[in-house]
Amino acid sequence: MIADKMRPLVENNSAIRAMFEEGKKMAAVYGRENVYDFSLGNPNVPAPPAVNQAILDIIREEETTFVHGYMSNAGFEDTRDAVAQSLNRRFGTHFRLENILMTVGAASGMNVIFKTILDPGDEVLVFAPYFMEYGSYVRNYDGVLVAVPPDTSSFQPDLKEFEKRITPKTKAVIINTPNNPTGVVYSAETLREIAGILKKKEAELGTQIVLISDEPYRELAYDGVEVPYVTPFYHNTIVCYSYSKSLSLPGERIGYLVIPDEMEDSSKVIAAAAVANRVLGCVNAPSLMQRVIVRCVESQVNLKAYDRNRELLYNRLKEYGFDCIKPEGAFYLFVKSPVDDKAFCQSCKEHRVLLVPGSSFACPGYVRIAYCVSYEQIERSLPAFKKIAEEYGLTEKREEV
Amino acid sequence: MIADKMRPLVENNSAIRAMFEEGKKMAAVYGRENVYDFSLGNPNVPAPPAVNQAILDIIREEETTFVHGYMSNAGFEDTRDAVAQSLNRRFGTHFRLENILMTVGAASGMNVIFKTILDPGDEVLVFAPYFMEYGSYVRNYDGVLVAVPPDTSSFQPDLKEFEKRITPKTKAVIINTPNNPTGVVYSAETLREIAGILKKKEAELGTQIVLISDEPYRELAYDGVEVPYVTPFYHNTIVCYSYSKSLSLPGERIGYLVIPDEMEDSSKVIAAAAVANRVLGCVNAPSLMQRVIVRCVESQVNLKAYDRNRELLYNRLKEYGFDCIKPEGAFYLFVKSPVDDKAFCQSCKEHRVLLVPGSSFACPGYVRIAYCVSYEQIERSLPAFKKIAEEYGLTEKREEV
Repeated sequence: MIADKMRPLVENNSAIRAMFEEGKKMAAVYGRENVYDFSLGNPNVPAPPAVNQAILDIIREEETTFVHGYMSNAGFEDTRDAVAQSLNRRFGTHFRLENILMTVGAASGMNVIFKTILDPGDEVLVFAPYFMEYGSYVRNYDGVLVAVPPDTSSFQPDLKEFEKRITPKTKAVIINTPNNPTGVVYSAETLREIAGILKKKEAELGTQIVLISDEPYRELAYDGVEVPYVTPFYHNTIVCYSYSKSLSLPGERIGYLVIPDEMEDSSKVIAAAAVANRVLGCVNAPSLMQRVIVRCVESQVNLKAYDRNRELLYNRLKEYGFDCIKPEGAFYLFVKSPVDDKAFCQSCKEHRVLLVPGSSFACPGYVRIAYCVSYEQIERSLPAFKKIAEEYGLTEKREEV
Repeated sequence: MIADKMRPLVENNSAIRAMFEEGKKMAAVYGRENVYDFSLGNPNVPAPPAVNQAILDIIREEETTFVHGYMSNAGFEDTRDAVAQSLNRRFGTHFRLENILMTVGAASGMNVIFKTILDPGDEVLVFAPYFMEYGSYVRNYDGVLVAVPPDTSSFQPDLKEFEKRITPKTKAVIINTPNNPTGVVYSAETLREIAGILKKKEAELGTQIVLISDEPYRELAYDGVEVPYVTPFYHNTIVCYSYSKSLSLPGERIGYLVIPDEMEDSSKVIAAAAVANRVLGCVNAPSLMQRVIVRCVESQVNLKAYDRNRELLYNRLKEYGFDCIKPEGAFYLFVKSPVDDKAFCQSCKEHRVLLVPGSSFACPGYVRIAYCVSYEQIERSLPAFKKIAEEYGLTEKREEV
């Protein structure tokens, strides 16, 4: 009954999602507070109060048939205008509402882009480690995802390896900064270099290469680190944004695409993306949440809560002997695994600590810890992490150094 | 820049949507009350008060991170359970929550089904006239939509023509009752005959054929006409439901799939559909709206408002000389066009009456009038319809009969 293409997807179902389902089962057995679930990027920090207030106000103030009704497939004009103006204020860009397409989250936004631009066999480059669902999104349109191997010393993109992999079939490149799963942020210099390589290759090959900036973690950066806006660096950039993390609304499925005028065939791409949004079945981004964005476009979750989690977990894990770079953004630690990462995750599960193997990000030998949990969960989990470190001799090794 | 497959989609962009966009422009020029826009199925009857009350209560009573957070890709368990129990109560079915998958509206639900079951070249049968987007949904997965020609005397399915078109490649059949654009409802007898043909063909060809029942208009039936539930008639049925019309929430993108245990490979199809929902980028149906469904699963829009519209418009149009069957469900009139349907719609536009040509439903020679508008709009539009009838000599013809 199942389509051939779906079969491997079902068999290799998302390890992250499998762990999430497992965590729910374990919580039922051991009690929620005794399971240390660091598997899913499901924010524990609540949406800013302005969001719920906006919902209450909209229901009271705006006309019901309008709030819950159809609008243009690209979204409400005032929502798109609010997004464009906010970006212009913050990043000195010059977007109009026409450059903004509201989407059912960033995942759907990426599907819309790929549906719009990918022909079968087109290649999409991505830097490992990366969110494995990218592969599914690309394969939905018979594209081929090509991974650039990681530089595990810094987890910054390896630009030499990148350049080598650009071919006449390269249609797009995905970047994701701040990064899931490593937490690294690309500097302006890095973006300039990536843009330089792409421009050179476009000229050399006579092709157009789209830089897709997947930005669900844009607002989540610490220690005052700058997350440069990507569109000024490169003409063929499409930004894929989500409010899942910045407003803690992952279940609501609300995000947007930015398709700048500078892009080749810009107006055609904009029109085609709106059609793709419709025919993929989304039709439009959820309407009430679009109304919320009009009122909350500059709101933000409490970043300090994540920062506090980051400091606690990073410092303790280092103290116990774990090896890990300090993340500058997002809400993940990407920790070196003392043994095979899948085996290590299994063994952590015996301590009721749920992590995701680096293999699930095309980077075996590491594990991802999502610290978008309560501070108390981190505190409660520390003895388990300590025991794990002792079990694997990490504490000793650290003391020997 | 645009993918080859997208190009025809952009060029032949939805006539319905084009008319909707045109209506907005005309409203800006002539004033909203002077444009009689009958183009889009965008309900004018507001969501039942219980829906907005539920939103207010959920925001006040339920935990924010839960309300707006991720859940399993198939949806919140209590939402799925509420849907299953409601169906069981109303239709004597025996669904469990596992049979229900919450989706981003029915359009997305259909994409999820086709992604799950269609291999390239698989054929999907549909009865003309039909919602043309079905073709895009099927082609998204390289399937082939095959239309069964209409019986324009009754707009009931022509079962002889249907049977002739079932081949070894037939993977699915779409039915849509109450029907867009005709408003006809399939009787139990008709469903029994369709099921009989499918079972016979399955046995003959040694294939599995999925009957997809697209049911956004299920609750919209008039004069006490029964809309039989489809799953008891045929084992391989998948129901595709939307709250867009039954709760007037088209912009919110909330619906569900029913995948019964009786279906071949049922548990695999259920698992695969949840994965399809994720990898297509929806991830899950919007979470707040899922919470609303728990509380409003038995709520309904004010059907009387649509019925009143139906009676007024149908009776007046008949009086003016238009030729049309009386719809038993949904909120559309499918009216015989006195001339080429596209030309007729153009000419109606000069009277500021916006209709959609039957060609857009694979049934030229007719036009669709969506009467999900205010009663006042219908009243205001009547002189225009009368003028149009006179212009085309319909009134005279009627008087001659």
